[in-house]
Amino acid sequence: MPASGERAAKIEPVTPEKFRIGLVQTRCGLDPDANLELATSKIREAASKGAQIVCLEELFRSQYFCREEDARLFDLAESIPGPSTDRLCPLAAELGVVIIASLFEKRAPGLYHNTAVIIDADGTMLGMYRKMHIPDDPLFFEKFYFTPGDLGFRAFDTKFGRIATLVCWDQWYPEAARLAALTGARILFYPTAIGWHPAEKAEYGEAQHDAWKTAQRAHAIANGVYVAAVNRVGFEGPEDRGLEFWGASFVADPFGRVVAQASHDEEEILVVECDEKVIEETRRGWPFLRDRRIDAYGPIVNRFLA
Amino acid sequence: MPASGERAAKIEPVTPEKFRIGLVQTRCGLDPDANLELATSKIREAASKGAQIVCLEELFRSQYFCREEDARLFDLAESIPGPSTDRLCPLAAELGVVIIASLFEKRAPGLYHNTAVIIDADGTMLGMYRKMHIPDDPLFFEKFYFTPGDLGFRAFDTKFGRIATLVCWDQWYPEAARLAALTGARILFYPTAIGWHPAEKAEYGEAQHDAWKTAQRAHAIANGVYVAAVNRVGFEGPEDRGLEFWGASFVADPFGRVVAQASHDEEEILVVECDEKVIEETRRGWPFLRDRRIDAYGPIVNRFLA
Repeated sequence: MPASGERAAKIEPVTPEKFRIGLVQTRCGLDPDANLELATSKIREAASKGAQIVCLEELFRSQYFCREEDARLFDLAESIPGPSTDRLCPLAAELGVVIIASLFEKRAPGLYHNTAVIIDADGTMLGMYRKMHIPDDPLFFEKFYFTPGDLGFRAFDTKFGRIATLVCWDQWYPEAARLAALTGARILFYPTAIGWHPAEKAEYGEAQHDAWKTAQRAHAIANGVYVAAVNRVGFEGPEDRGLEFWGASFVADPFGRVVAQASHDEEEILVVECDEKVIEETRRGWPFLRDRRIDAYGPIVNRFLA
Repeated sequence: MPASGERAAKIEPVTPEKFRIGLVQTRCGLDPDANLELATSKIREAASKGAQIVCLEELFRSQYFCREEDARLFDLAESIPGPSTDRLCPLAAELGVVIIASLFEKRAPGLYHNTAVIIDADGTMLGMYRKMHIPDDPLFFEKFYFTPGDLGFRAFDTKFGRIATLVCWDQWYPEAARLAALTGARILFYPTAIGWHPAEKAEYGEAQHDAWKTAQRAHAIANGVYVAAVNRVGFEGPEDRGLEFWGASFVADPFGRVVAQASHDEEEILVVECDEKVIEETRRGWPFLRDRRIDAYGPIVNRFLA
């Protein structure tokens, strides 16, 4: 790790309109403590490359345990604040970076959430977002573990501007992106754990990855915000019932252009400079927020309309 | 035009789950009657190729008059029913096809809409959709001409299944696609008139087209429906203040895969077979509708939340 003076010397100063984000894409091992160590070293690396807001992948402290339903795995959960924030808050303060960390939250016995905590650059915990949309599909048995979030869609005023975070399955819901963007966030972060079933990859893998990327690029376009998706890599689980996490963490600008993308299978850190002026320019050119028919959207709170 | 017997012999029968759509991408000339003639011949051609639901591009009866604000151009508007439906309803009955026609509607003196009419295969007018989101940008001065729609987002039960139509600028609004899809439509049609400013094309043209396509593919993905966008081609207006309509009409399947796409500059008819089974399979595999947080979307009726 370079001393902070060396780091500062390497990195150009940014204006308040600009902010640099760091996406940490890693492989997760079986030992939660080792995963935390890995994450902290990657956060240091991202900071050394100039990142001001660092986002970790979903549930970075463990392998993706939702591949199976096993009540013993609730032992992986932790309180918030708790061991992870005890480690990450001082790290954020030391490095002067914002950290977004996705954790398995134990709120009470029998009440667990999939939660992202937002730690400001001075080490204070700004708050948390509890994943609102919970999937349940073969090898993604999240409804067994996570109570749907009850905090709604929210923004956080960090040292480096207002941001919002959503989590994984939320990325398929335009309502979530819209509500988060309407809070005035400059960027939506999506800590993610998505991968291929090996048996499906040949036939559907490319379409699945493309749909995932397209849906999120569209959130950037519809809302004129940056979007950053942070996924893990690596194969987890038994060969016949495991998941190949597809990585490909990326950043889309407010017009949906992919400005950086990681590989499908390597640990990587993406550091990307974002600029509020691009948001302003994009929204002036394509002023979608101007023309929303808020008088006519009320029925969207229905399950179905037929 | 082949006789209907010949046509029937050429085209395989489709099951009730399948339906064939026809997208008519043309150049529009200065004479509204000639444009109507062209449209009717293209509808015949689409039908002869097996199309059951034919969608015309936005405001196909004229060049895109919204390039300028000129009160005399309200003369282009017509009542509904009116001259266009008088011509298209019998044509629909003759060919046994559904027709979606985008018209400049004169509802009352001083009250005009950008309206799509849906004509069933027996020639009856099923109803209309009035464009809800009205743009106003240089060379797209639609707010001067069109009162925003007051009919909401709706579906129409045609002989070939339930469909919904939205219009052009609506395509940037995920709320509109969601509400239309929740009505149970199998497919969302977007009659469109979008093009490049010649001065912008080199720098932004590709990103603009890609954003347009991405936003609509994302509607298909988020909702598990087919999406069909029908745009015009050709350069209209003076060289220095004209628009180059970018064509590229396309059909996306319920997973957002583009299954057909027209060129940027040629008149074309796309005929695509769609299958309700693909909707069912897609939504089973990625059941986004299952997990919507309708308890938490209420604030979406706000202009902004900061």
